[in-house]
Amino acid sequence: MRIDSVAILGGTGQQGSGLARRLAAAGVRVVVGSRDPERARAITAAWSGAVDVAANGAAAADADTVVLAVPFATIDALVDDVGPRMRSGAVVIDLTVPLTFAGGKMAMLEVAEGSAAEHIRAKLPPAVALACAFKTIPAHLLDRVDEPLDCDEFVCGDSDAARERALALVAALPQLRGVDVGPLSRARSIEQLTALAVAINRRHKRHDARFRVVGL
Amino acid sequence: MRIDSVAILGGTGQQGSGLARRLAAAGVRVVVGSRDPERARAITAAWSGAVDVAANGAAAADADTVVLAVPFATIDALVDDVGPRMRSGAVVIDLTVPLTFAGGKMAMLEVAEGSAAEHIRAKLPPAVALACAFKTIPAHLLDRVDEPLDCDEFVCGDSDAARERALALVAALPQLRGVDVGPLSRARSIEQLTALAVAINRRHKRHDARFRVVGL
Repeated sequence: MRIDSVAILGGTGQQGSGLARRLAAAGVRVVVGSRDPERARAITAAWSGAVDVAANGAAAADADTVVLAVPFATIDALVDDVGPRMRSGAVVIDLTVPLTFAGGKMAMLEVAEGSAAEHIRAKLPPAVALACAFKTIPAHLLDRVDEPLDCDEFVCGDSDAARERALALVAALPQLRGVDVGPLSRARSIEQLTALAVAINRRHKRHDARFRVVGL
Repeated sequence: MRIDSVAILGGTGQQGSGLARRLAAAGVRVVVGSRDPERARAITAAWSGAVDVAANGAAAADADTVVLAVPFATIDALVDDVGPRMRSGAVVIDLTVPLTFAGGKMAMLEVAEGSAAEHIRAKLPPAVALACAFKTIPAHLLDRVDEPLDCDEFVCGDSDAARERALALVAALPQLRGVDVGPLSRARSIEQLTALAVAINRRHKRHDARFRVVGL
């Protein structure tokens, strides 16, 4: 499977812009969704590849694959806004991790549904499918687009089609291997893995801790 | 720091015996603790290195470093039994993960304290320190003692001395790198990582999925 185009909502943030530029460089047509398209147009003007800009709602309404690249704190407002406008059969890719850094201390937010992914699933229309990807890649590594990613990325979701779409997005990026870990509830483990990477970075004064699976 | 000797309670199980034989091969004196020392003596007779056998309680009372290598389901009974007999200043190394496989389906047990490690901490006498290690190495890989481990292993604990002891145990094994991830509550992430490894094994028909940290 090949992904021809993707909408990235919140596409001018660190994580979103890194993903957008890497996918554009890989030949994927990218629509950067933003609350402020004019500002987004100024930011993306220097990017190479096929990059368009639209308001979040319009970008979501017009795409088969929609990446949510906003922080967990603003995901409810975004999904409430754009969810009802999405196409039936569209696939949403969730990147969020419910981490807080209040008072300089990293902690996992309690999410009633068990994970950010399951929380988002509960808010999306049933006709839209959901998969997780790119949760464990450090955002600022993603944003340094000339550096190789050199790691594995974990994909989960209850829809086979959505997982396949997410794996195809991962496969579009060089030196990144997608690992299918099954149902959406596995996001609980994946999001904890991100917390572990942050803990390793803080403890060892690094910035780019990420993971590879050995024995696969 | 070098570990001269260690007691491994439940040392004839798959995980315990793999760890015992690998540590003995590395020159560490190992006391295998068992509920049934006679049976343990028969099992360990063929092992090489400095390996002794004792009842769990005696092994725990006599050691500075005590590894708990029993399944999570039996950890309460073991800790209630041996905890009060441990030396003041002893370090306990916890390997357990609260996974169940009821009905063939893998799931994480809800542990009120947040993780198996924090549950065990709450049950241990205050004068005994606790660290986690070896939670993410597949037990049966550990047990195939001639195969290289070739991965990273995550260590956490609230006591600096206990984490140091756990890191020294990890360092005693060839081709294994210990990664200090900080406080004991990080066990929540580590235990989820084990669940992820099991999920990867089941989905991809593997047995040895484990992890390496990239960028460290």
